[in-house]
Amino acid sequence: MPFDLPLVHNPCSAVLQARLQTLLDNKTKPLGSLGRLETLAVQIGMALGTEGPVLEQPQLLVFAADHGLAQRGVSAYPSDVTWQMVENFLAGGAAVSVLARQHGLNLGVVDCGVRHDFAARPGLHLCKVAHGTADSFEGPAMSIQQCEQALHNGIELLSGLPGNVVLLGEMGIGNSSAAALLMASFTGRGIAECTGAGTGLNAIAIERKAGILQQVLNQHADARTPLEILAAMGGFEIATMVGAVLQAASERRVVVVDGFIATAAVLVAHALCPDVLPYCVFAHQSGEQGHRNMLKYLNAQPLLDLGLRLGEGSGAALAWPLLVSACSILRDMASFDSASVSRAG
Amino acid sequence: MPFDLPLVHNPCSAVLQARLQTLLDNKTKPLGSLGRLETLAVQIGMALGTEGPVLEQPQLLVFAADHGLAQRGVSAYPSDVTWQMVENFLAGGAAVSVLARQHGLNLGVVDCGVRHDFAARPGLHLCKVAHGTADSFEGPAMSIQQCEQALHNGIELLSGLPGNVVLLGEMGIGNSSAAALLMASFTGRGIAECTGAGTGLNAIAIERKAGILQQVLNQHADARTPLEILAAMGGFEIATMVGAVLQAASERRVVVVDGFIATAAVLVAHALCPDVLPYCVFAHQSGEQGHRNMLKYLNAQPLLDLGLRLGEGSGAALAWPLLVSACSILRDMASFDSASVSRAG
Repeated sequence: MPFDLPLVHNPCSAVLQARLQTLLDNKTKPLGSLGRLETLAVQIGMALGTEGPVLEQPQLLVFAADHGLAQRGVSAYPSDVTWQMVENFLAGGAAVSVLARQHGLNLGVVDCGVRHDFAARPGLHLCKVAHGTADSFEGPAMSIQQCEQALHNGIELLSGLPGNVVLLGEMGIGNSSAAALLMASFTGRGIAECTGAGTGLNAIAIERKAGILQQVLNQHADARTPLEILAAMGGFEIATMVGAVLQAASERRVVVVDGFIATAAVLVAHALCPDVLPYCVFAHQSGEQGHRNMLKYLNAQPLLDLGLRLGEGSGAALAWPLLVSACSILRDMASFDSASVSRAG
Repeated sequence: MPFDLPLVHNPCSAVLQARLQTLLDNKTKPLGSLGRLETLAVQIGMALGTEGPVLEQPQLLVFAADHGLAQRGVSAYPSDVTWQMVENFLAGGAAVSVLARQHGLNLGVVDCGVRHDFAARPGLHLCKVAHGTADSFEGPAMSIQQCEQALHNGIELLSGLPGNVVLLGEMGIGNSSAAALLMASFTGRGIAECTGAGTGLNAIAIERKAGILQQVLNQHADARTPLEILAAMGGFEIATMVGAVLQAASERRVVVVDGFIATAAVLVAHALCPDVLPYCVFAHQSGEQGHRNMLKYLNAQPLLDLGLRLGEGSGAALAWPLLVSACSILRDMASFDSASVSRAG
């Protein structure tokens, strides 16, 4: 590689973990009664290395790119929807735009490789590697050089952002196919288990999609390293996200992971560097059928389960207030002693 | 009854439902891709009777009372914790205080029958029926007159509140026992299925608790009407909540229901008037073991499943931003036409 991958430090510390747990156990509530919120508080405290975590200047990034494979009819929507939705994100009309406004998240859109030229403007990060990937049915989606460029773009982008937390979303017609291919390659599951409805295919179209994806897998059976697999069957938005995850973790930022495609990026980042996982908060389990097993492979407990299958970072934005709550519980709740409340008998 | 129950109008309208669904289907997203958020948006739109719902001046009420049955050792905590926690709510140190601040919810605490005299102060509603219920192991927890008084208090309290949405929480050492008894009576399930850890009993103590509750059920086998059952085995906070639910629904307010005990109040309100249900949003499925089947009986789909078992309205507060999101999606998202985005092919 023409550059070194960011060095990620595993944040898990038995001492800090015990301190955080003791803090929680002394709050005015029955032991463990805040359930998943408590494990989330401990995770964030460890990621940020503090007993009083404050999430600052949250950055929601939507990584966008087009896919050569889309021409095989693996999506219900035409590729033009990718750039049209980028315009919609920037104009404030998409679901993620609405949710980012609600929660005060700074929304950035990253052109990683959309088949369209955008005018520069605030909120748009230009990190284009090419006008869409090549068709992975015929050859590698990208060259190793392009893949490294995308990784590098993600690293550079993240290192320039303020705050200590980033939320990952994406947009790219065809990218549930790329994510399914990565899932099959990294988890070893059969392609039928990894292939889902994406933007809304029916059962027959899903079967057809899985058939195409099986041929893509066969075509790239010689891809071995994480980078080779990512280059052969990934997408520019996924590769850029992989770089972003690695850099975010190396800076001890909390990473809020959206759905199936964002989790596929974490799958690749994890293969390159397993220590990224303690920084990742998995926002939700999506309605896309492969997501459950992808999360299981990463031993991840998602926060929400609302049947979302939109992407864009919408699930990450919806889960965001839970992270804020977890930190507030740790910082602002009274203890049994400070509030003079009796303990269990 | 010395007063008429509030008249509840069923808000379900096929015409409005179809309009809301069409609005959602024209938003820039694949059909149905916002999952549970979409059904939530339709429900809130129908409850408020509008295509552009705005949730205004949310009121989070914590209904508090003590239970005579607590002297039987059915809780891990002493009864004094009820009034101590009321002080903690008002001082801003409890979980629900922290969460209400985070989300801009107006927090009110309702003394429905705590065994303690509170000085009047802002945020505290004095609706005390008595200093705790009687021990339902020996006789009815309250008289029919006391039960009606509590219902009336809830109705009066709600009718004086601003806004169009109320979030229901509770505090009362012993009230998971009262809720279990109501669940057994209204759903017909065996008491072992309705009895859980409450504030944190171990398996042996839960079995002992179930044994005591079975004797209470036997003692009140002649209670037949919802009011008789509520009086015999309920609590003042639960009865006051029942009145609040009925009045809120009659005013077409959205009701956000917290966990096991708040849902038990809805169970009673539903028995008195089934049309309250379309106004109720069930915030979460709690870690208290009976809650899943209680929700199932009401055909309710909870929003969150985080293993919470704290009460106070904490789960309702955590789910709150999802309601705001559902309304924003409906009001603020662009349509395919307005954003010039291509539709599915």
